[in-house]
Amino acid sequence: MRNWFKRKKKSTDKMDSIAKRWKLLSGKNNWEGLLDPLDHDLRRYIIHYGEMAQASYDNFNSDRASKNAGNFRYSKNHLFAKVGLEKGNLFKYRVTKYLYATSSIQVPEAFIVKSLSRESWSKESNWIGFIAVVTDEGKTILGRREILISWRGTVQTLDWVDDLDCFQVPAPKIFRGNTDPEVHRGWYSIYTSDDARSPLNKTSARDQVLEEVTRLVEEYKHEEISITITGHSMGAAVGTLNAIDIVANGFNKPRDKGMTSGCLVTAFLFASPRVGDSNFRNAFSKLENLRILRVSNAFDIIPNYPMVDYSEIGVELAIDTTKSNYLKVPGDVRSWHSLEAHMHGVAGFQGAKGGFKLEVQRDISLVNKHLDALKDEYCVPSSWWVEKNNGMVQQDDGSWNLMDHEDDDDSTYT
Amino acid sequence: MRNWFKRKKKSTDKMDSIAKRWKLLSGKNNWEGLLDPLDHDLRRYIIHYGEMAQASYDNFNSDRASKNAGNFRYSKNHLFAKVGLEKGNLFKYRVTKYLYATSSIQVPEAFIVKSLSRESWSKESNWIGFIAVVTDEGKTILGRREILISWRGTVQTLDWVDDLDCFQVPAPKIFRGNTDPEVHRGWYSIYTSDDARSPLNKTSARDQVLEEVTRLVEEYKHEEISITITGHSMGAAVGTLNAIDIVANGFNKPRDKGMTSGCLVTAFLFASPRVGDSNFRNAFSKLENLRILRVSNAFDIIPNYPMVDYSEIGVELAIDTTKSNYLKVPGDVRSWHSLEAHMHGVAGFQGAKGGFKLEVQRDISLVNKHLDALKDEYCVPSSWWVEKNNGMVQQDDGSWNLMDHEDDDDSTYT
Repeated sequence: MRNWFKRKKKSTDKMDSIAKRWKLLSGKNNWEGLLDPLDHDLRRYIIHYGEMAQASYDNFNSDRASKNAGNFRYSKNHLFAKVGLEKGNLFKYRVTKYLYATSSIQVPEAFIVKSLSRESWSKESNWIGFIAVVTDEGKTILGRREILISWRGTVQTLDWVDDLDCFQVPAPKIFRGNTDPEVHRGWYSIYTSDDARSPLNKTSARDQVLEEVTRLVEEYKHEEISITITGHSMGAAVGTLNAIDIVANGFNKPRDKGMTSGCLVTAFLFASPRVGDSNFRNAFSKLENLRILRVSNAFDIIPNYPMVDYSEIGVELAIDTTKSNYLKVPGDVRSWHSLEAHMHGVAGFQGAKGGFKLEVQRDISLVNKHLDALKDEYCVPSSWWVEKNNGMVQQDDGSWNLMDHEDDDDSTYT
Repeated sequence: MRNWFKRKKKSTDKMDSIAKRWKLLSGKNNWEGLLDPLDHDLRRYIIHYGEMAQASYDNFNSDRASKNAGNFRYSKNHLFAKVGLEKGNLFKYRVTKYLYATSSIQVPEAFIVKSLSRESWSKESNWIGFIAVVTDEGKTILGRREILISWRGTVQTLDWVDDLDCFQVPAPKIFRGNTDPEVHRGWYSIYTSDDARSPLNKTSARDQVLEEVTRLVEEYKHEEISITITGHSMGAAVGTLNAIDIVANGFNKPRDKGMTSGCLVTAFLFASPRVGDSNFRNAFSKLENLRILRVSNAFDIIPNYPMVDYSEIGVELAIDTTKSNYLKVPGDVRSWHSLEAHMHGVAGFQGAKGGFKLEVQRDISLVNKHLDALKDEYCVPSSWWVEKNNGMVQQDDGSWNLMDHEDDDDSTYT
């Protein structure tokens, strides 16, 4: 099926336009005048970050029968090729760091996936995302040296909503002793918990990401840089905390430039649940060089959770995938929440004009990667994203072994 | 996981024993004294033919979203490698012919799988099995030049049982004008129907298989040969008709040897429904050099279908997979009927002695290829047999196409 990346190759000026306009596209003016009608470059830009969030799902092993349940599948060097983001993709990045999270409080089972195997790779940690940096080649398209952080969400079920409480806690690690802003204790726990016994979470996801951001900001301090955060669902919530943390604590500038303002930090969040209270929103609004765009889908319930005492932050792009003539109507709670469906929605969103028309030729078959959402007439298999034989690999003697994890050089990985 | 083929390599004498004993193992003496306790060579022999029947399933495309629904997936040259029967397998064959069937009467939907696509490869035909011949290398293990016919069954659901009627019809093509023996009209229709409009069924499955058997018997008429038929479920029923047809009509001997007796023809049938009436059984019992071994599983309902006015033929090997300590108890209608479960049952069958013990080290993970039947403690994914991304393949421009069919050189294939 057709792919919109093809069009880009034919219109180099269009690619230039992202490099030239990147600050606008990253929300320097809070996306004023770009959302309705939705700017063509911005469609492609949002979809690109959606794909980087999707990469975290597609790299995640959620099969509890595997001893690698909760871990990544592909090594850092292979990630983009394996999740289908190399061929025909002009946005070029290098993965520099994998991130792991644990939780010190009880959270819904979907947040931390645990293996059934007694030989489980980890009893308490999950792979939770990655950090990548734009290559020299990618910089010509994106216009700056971007540091990208992708936070994985929960697997595609929504059962966890029933288990989600609405308890709020202060966030002293983010707000340095200011205990007024309160945030959801689940998101905060995932972001900040460490576990002294854990090989991969001796430090928290927060400490891991901040250490790597510090290193990269230092490494590229003589270039124009930006930091972009992306995530879907739980990944959007954790990404919100991460974005605010980076700006509130000055991790968006080199160590020796304490008084200058930091680089632009932008979070592209998809289907984000609510994260904090009104004090949290106030604290957010005082931060400089921080922008948040939330893409929400009309019938998705998650952006309304938790329902009481929470405030939304940033700018909302409200799409409606039920208007798509490619999808089964009306869809269901899974398809409304799905990240791939959100990207399809961004590609065809028509705003106040109404209706639906694919403005970027993103392959529609991607919607069915984890869903049965495309109309049958397109003859695309449902939930087609799967390893060959679910990771069972035949050995030379004819027997079969589950081989669903590539080793990587993480020094912390045992 | 361990594989019993490994053991074979270490004990060449054991492999010799199949070559030396093949007539006994193929039922020359109607398997007298070999079934309880179950002869070790015979276990491996039955499992081998089960795997050849399983190859027909694993090569079949049953995804109705595909325009190739109802067709094979892999070309003849790649078949055994693609279905996992090349590595570590000493039984070497060359596929010489693919078979196609249609039905001139209404049969349950599962018998003829139809694509939802308007660009369907065929409106009326299904790929129904293959013919293979033992290579020179394989002949040293199997003791003769064997012609093997594998008939595919229905896909693994059992919904079709509810749609199965019990109407019997004479079988004039098999019994040459003798209209006393009657057989199930569904099996007979699949075996004998042609369709002048159909590129692949201008001739019936029967005509296709008999033409190829004739060719191969002629080609190898100076060697010792045998013909073996294998099939599971519907494939066992059609295989029964085919075995009887071959012997009743003398296709088991070269054309110029009209008066000599033909070669031994043996059918290894798994989970076979009933095929014909008592006259059919009588006709079968008069045929020379024809042997049938039916493997049936204690709680499987299919061997009792159709329930009235039908007779069973051949020798029964009655296993009971609920005795296996590897499988979830008690199982369900799908696991009791499954061909992979039957092979597991044959590997561990203990007969009158009772209990269950794996006598051949066939990889237990194979049971879960199309089932969730192994106990969770083995940490084998359920229903793990699947193409990478269900056949969706990324193109150079980044888009995705469904590529789930290898072209072959069948002159009849359009």
